[in-house]
Amino acid sequence: MNSPEDRLLRTIAKATKAAKPKGSLHLGLGDDAALWAPRAGFETILTCDWFLEGSHFLRGAHPPDSVGWKCLARAVSDVAAMGGEPKCFLLSLALPLSHAGRWLDRFLGGLRRAAQRFGCQLAGGDTTRRHQILINIMVVGEVRAGKAILRSGAEAGDLIFVSGRLGEAEFGLRSLLRGRTANRRGSPSVEKHLYPEPRLALGHWLAKMGIATAMTDLSDGLSSDLPRLCAASRVGALIDAGKIPSVDPAKGLHSRASAADRPALALNGGDDYELLFTVRPRKARQMPSRLQGLPLTCIGKITRKKAIQVVLANGQKKNLLPGGWDPFRR
Amino acid sequence: MNSPEDRLLRTIAKATKAAKPKGSLHLGLGDDAALWAPRAGFETILTCDWFLEGSHFLRGAHPPDSVGWKCLARAVSDVAAMGGEPKCFLLSLALPLSHAGRWLDRFLGGLRRAAQRFGCQLAGGDTTRRHQILINIMVVGEVRAGKAILRSGAEAGDLIFVSGRLGEAEFGLRSLLRGRTANRRGSPSVEKHLYPEPRLALGHWLAKMGIATAMTDLSDGLSSDLPRLCAASRVGALIDAGKIPSVDPAKGLHSRASAADRPALALNGGDDYELLFTVRPRKARQMPSRLQGLPLTCIGKITRKKAIQVVLANGQKKNLLPGGWDPFRR
Repeated sequence: MNSPEDRLLRTIAKATKAAKPKGSLHLGLGDDAALWAPRAGFETILTCDWFLEGSHFLRGAHPPDSVGWKCLARAVSDVAAMGGEPKCFLLSLALPLSHAGRWLDRFLGGLRRAAQRFGCQLAGGDTTRRHQILINIMVVGEVRAGKAILRSGAEAGDLIFVSGRLGEAEFGLRSLLRGRTANRRGSPSVEKHLYPEPRLALGHWLAKMGIATAMTDLSDGLSSDLPRLCAASRVGALIDAGKIPSVDPAKGLHSRASAADRPALALNGGDDYELLFTVRPRKARQMPSRLQGLPLTCIGKITRKKAIQVVLANGQKKNLLPGGWDPFRR
Repeated sequence: MNSPEDRLLRTIAKATKAAKPKGSLHLGLGDDAALWAPRAGFETILTCDWFLEGSHFLRGAHPPDSVGWKCLARAVSDVAAMGGEPKCFLLSLALPLSHAGRWLDRFLGGLRRAAQRFGCQLAGGDTTRRHQILINIMVVGEVRAGKAILRSGAEAGDLIFVSGRLGEAEFGLRSLLRGRTANRRGSPSVEKHLYPEPRLALGHWLAKMGIATAMTDLSDGLSSDLPRLCAASRVGALIDAGKIPSVDPAKGLHSRASAADRPALALNGGDDYELLFTVRPRKARQMPSRLQGLPLTCIGKITRKKAIQVVLANGQKKNLLPGGWDPFRR
């Protein structure tokens, strides 16, 4: 029990205060596997996400506590997108020995803050040594049986909504990489890129109210994620470019050049972790314009015709081509 | 839905025939997350495992279908070690574009064979592009509530058992890397290294009969895994080197040099995925010497004294130091 791997596991367990399982988690860290049983009347949500150095974050540009926060936030966002509540997670971590000290402490600090914020307890995982930092997070959530909001429930005529403003996280990433010290921290878009907030309250509210017919989270960008929702529902969509809420010019757009980027950022920017969902027209009256301060905006409607089209400012219709994050396209 | 990542997901879904969830799996591939609910009276087992090129397999030496088989077998072995049955899994796969064709097909072939063999259905996952092949498998299993066999239940006086023969997989790896064509396939030890069999039937039988007090699987080697079981149970162990079943000299040991390696291989060799478990002395009479052909051998006993000791052929007692696989030691 004094091997370096065992010591690493103890560091993780201590830093995340995950020794004693609670609630539906019956057994946590320290055995071959975790034991879990959902509450009566609930289903378990299972999802996993890569978070890899060089692909999803940069060792030099991203603070370790942001890496810890974001790896969990990304995976928790998939639970929000089903209308569920996150409960526990498994952490698979590969890292260099050189990073098993201070970097790891700060990483675990961000992870612990995120775990507390999202109500999600470390239940287990796997560690190994590697020259690059590799992370895989598997999140377990709960949703009342039969209440999960799938991608496949949208029908022609349904209205399409998004939460928040799109393209902010991508804009934040650009500011971060430009490396202007003033922009690196404190700017809302940089904060959104570094410490995204999965829309748990909204997802949970939509599932409870039974308002949304289909839902997904915007991780790869609207132009990539909307076609996935439409394909699962076997429908198309017509959205209005002018209605898409984009980066607030008052909060971070400093030049005419970046102002011109706003529509493209809103369509293609990834990492926003906002929710995209559809609502039957007769239920649209129940939709508030904000939920707990988060703007909810109707950007178009679902069509029988399977094309994904966008109406531009000049009234012209154009097919929307996926331009968001797809690691296999680059 | 025609992005390269979406096409890769469809290839995986098609190759693993995982479109329609069944049993406790309510929703599989194609949404933000999977939905799962265990049968009444059962708990869910959750476990995950890295399987990384360069650390756990070599692109040149390991056939792609072995990579597919073994990544799932390793994770399923943790379910066997709890006395449970595997049910479904999430596949996180990162690979180079150059491997998204023939290599992927063969990888998925091995994965599908393993999934059928273990009764474990693909439920979801995440894919990304990467210059190296990275795999993380998360397995979901079931065990009757309260019947899981933990690492923490061993008491002083319990007898220590192992299944199978130890060191075979490590010996197989050495044969594979020596690259003698005759040894590469067909030899039982090479087969055990490439296509390990998690001891599901044994784990399940032990849980059902209530015979084992503590259990873990031998993934890193006896000298690493026994101390973990003992630490979880707050006990020590005294094992008899002469009783440890090691590589069968009739099946693959070709030289005096390798014959001399047998005790070290049995103590430190990794990747066997045999089960290590403890039994109260009064229940030991119920232990058969074989279960479905698999040898079960008593190798020592649990002690109140927390040291992990081995009795050598000359009667001398020696502390057993972890010499198995620990990625942070190398």
